[in-house]
Amino acid sequence: MSQPVIALLTDFGYESPFVGVVKGVICSRLPEVRIIDLTHSIEAYNVAEAGFWLQRSYAYLPESTVYISVVDPGVGTERQILAAKVGDRVFLAPDNGLLDYALANAAEIVYRALDLQVLKEPFLLDTISSTFHGRDIFAPIAVALVAKHCAFEELGPVITDIVKTTIQPPVEESDCIAGNILSVDRYGNLITDLDSTLLQGKVGVRLVCSGQDFPIQQTYGQAEKGKCVALINSFGVFEIACVEGNAAAMLNFERGARVELHFQK
Amino acid sequence: MSQPVIALLTDFGYESPFVGVVKGVICSRLPEVRIIDLTHSIEAYNVAEAGFWLQRSYAYLPESTVYISVVDPGVGTERQILAAKVGDRVFLAPDNGLLDYALANAAEIVYRALDLQVLKEPFLLDTISSTFHGRDIFAPIAVALVAKHCAFEELGPVITDIVKTTIQPPVEESDCIAGNILSVDRYGNLITDLDSTLLQGKVGVRLVCSGQDFPIQQTYGQAEKGKCVALINSFGVFEIACVEGNAAAMLNFERGARVELHFQK
Amino acid sequence: MSQPVIALLTDFGYESPFVGVVKGVICSRLPEVRIIDLTHSIEAYNVAEAGFWLQRSYAYLPESTVYISVVDPGVGTERQILAAKVGDRVFLAPDNGLLDYALANAAEIVYRALDLQVLKEPFLLDTISSTFHGRDIFAPIAVALVAKHCAFEELGPVITDIVKTTIQPPVEESDCIAGNILSVDRYGNLITDLDSTLLQGKVGVRLVCSGQDFPIQQTYGQAEKGKCVALINSFGVFEIACVEGNAAAMLNFERGARVELHFQK
Repeated sequence: MSQPVIALLTDFGYESPFVGVVKGVICSRLPEVRIIDLTHSIEAYNVAEAGFWLQRSYAYLPESTVYISVVDPGVGTERQILAAKVGDRVFLAPDNGLLDYALANAAEIVYRALDLQVLKEPFLLDTISSTFHGRDIFAPIAVALVAKHCAFEELGPVITDIVKTTIQPPVEESDCIAGNILSVDRYGNLITDLDSTLLQGKVGVRLVCSGQDFPIQQTYGQAEKGKCVALINSFGVFEIACVEGNAAAMLNFERGARVELHFQK
Repeated sequence: MSQPVIALLTDFGYESPFVGVVKGVICSRLPEVRIIDLTHSIEAYNVAEAGFWLQRSYAYLPESTVYISVVDPGVGTERQILAAKVGDRVFLAPDNGLLDYALANAAEIVYRALDLQVLKEPFLLDTISSTFHGRDIFAPIAVALVAKHCAFEELGPVITDIVKTTIQPPVEESDCIAGNILSVDRYGNLITDLDSTLLQGKVGVRLVCSGQDFPIQQTYGQAEKGKCVALINSFGVFEIACVEGNAAAMLNFERGARVELHFQK
Repeated sequence: MSQPVIALLTDFGYESPFVGVVKGVICSRLPEVRIIDLTHSIEAYNVAEAGFWLQRSYAYLPESTVYISVVDPGVGTERQILAAKVGDRVFLAPDNGLLDYALANAAEIVYRALDLQVLKEPFLLDTISSTFHGRDIFAPIAVALVAKHCAFEELGPVITDIVKTTIQPPVEESDCIAGNILSVDRYGNLITDLDSTLLQGKVGVRLVCSGQDFPIQQTYGQAEKGKCVALINSFGVFEIACVEGNAAAMLNFERGARVELHFQK
């Protein structure tokens, strides 16, 4: 029951063998590992979208999973690489706000900054490129962790001053709670950071984006085909969806757009 | 030789971690399972395309595979979830015509409707969302089946009155057999539901779509580059292809277009 | 440590279950195999791009991997299928220049042409289609090799006269070294075949494409956002990248474009 599991969440895409090469490095070192692709289609360079999806999805994976999350416009610069331990899970990511967002609700997080000087000789690839740390650093360190060749405590010093996310959490304003569209899925559903818990104790709730009101319902099939509605999706946040259609294409809303939850006072 | 295998065929896409989360649920419960992705790029909400590809591809997978097929615009409504047993294979899908299409040629099918009241406690996720039954119901039931924690007979009552596909099979008309374009592949090949067996005993066959004639040949490389031709593809149906080009882009035909097989009387 | 590994690199895409069916054939015959997807998004029919990525990525996979590389516009014609042995690795591909490109720098390659007459009975699928040899021939032969049911020497006769790639390697001209854009990745980075070794002993190097000069730097984050730069990427070749942007979209350069390395005499 204790198969080693490494999860991947990146903006590498599927166009080139970047993900395949990361898996090659992992499997060369640990043939019995299970690798789970969360997604490789995070919008290029969109650190917040990566943090959001990691936050909302990680708990569905086995408890001892090591997560490699790489959306890393600063690769090869002075930015550090973080390891975060939450329970039995370890998260690896560049120190650019990704984990700050992803683990915002996690308890008892310990962060360490990878000490590459110490880790290089026993673990890393012989040559560390300036542009592909997913392959050269993240993959071998994840293997070292799941294979128990290296303890979390040996990765580097504890740090507390990590880079913060640039995305503000939803804020209560005078007449609404304002959040953002963070992601767009395959159906064109516009996924926000407005959590379902914001509904508690509220009545007469409606979602407003770009001056348009979206009625809130339980699931897609409750409205007629082609209608745009709001609902709390299966990851616990509000989204705007078009019944059997594509809300993103119909409404022309994009990531970063402001979304408001209005309710009766 | 009896590794448990679960196959996935969905319209979830690769943009978000939907597929990854389904795999997380599966692997958390059954670490030694093999998961095979048939495709996650079925056109959004296109139940017929899913049924078509499941029909044409399932026999290439191991005989004891459990297939999760989710194209499910009615998720969270009253629609039922079906399990179908064909030999050693079990197919799980929403009751929306998908399996009716996919198993049209299968012998001795037994259908059961999942009894979620009975299955919930021992198997399903603690919270069943209204919009992601792939994760909350299909994945844990597939695990229960391949892990032999639940027999097919325990899933729920036998039913015979399943929802029928809305796609009519090809029909013989006065001067031709008429079918449909059901799918478009990565090369822009336009894939029809006209089965190669329709050729039997016919001579002088030609494929006609939107008033254009397409000569029938054996393989792509037999005509000059850029030419559009018809052929029987490797899944036993006619397709229209452009040699080293993209027929869908060149001809501007789409899914649902009528295609005719003409032959000498 | 000797888990059998099969790697896949194709232009099949993710739209249809082509890759899934190949995996179904492989797993039906060898349940314990590991399959690594290098990529299935090679530009349709682009043999050179496939050869390039295979060349640059294969060494990251386990040493006994069998590689199936299928970009095969000539499928079903008289073209042969090659197997190439380099150390413990075996490469399977159509004889169309793909392996000639991929293995240009490999030492002690032995090529054999598959003898399908001999191999058919014990290994191949019962029906060999004219258009999907990945499923009907490549997959079962790869299984036979990694499962040791068939030795490399039994695949067919040694041949030396393989089809050559149509892409010329970079050439030294009077005032520059000229190469090509071979691939475009998910970030819009334009990836060339100009190897970093061409820099040796040169000073004052700059990259020129379509009359524009691109300054050479170490990594993306060293220039301001939106600026287009050149760098040696993690696969050892020059690329043109836009910092946190998409160079392909900004510059409108495409695969096949000429790229020049200029330097001081």
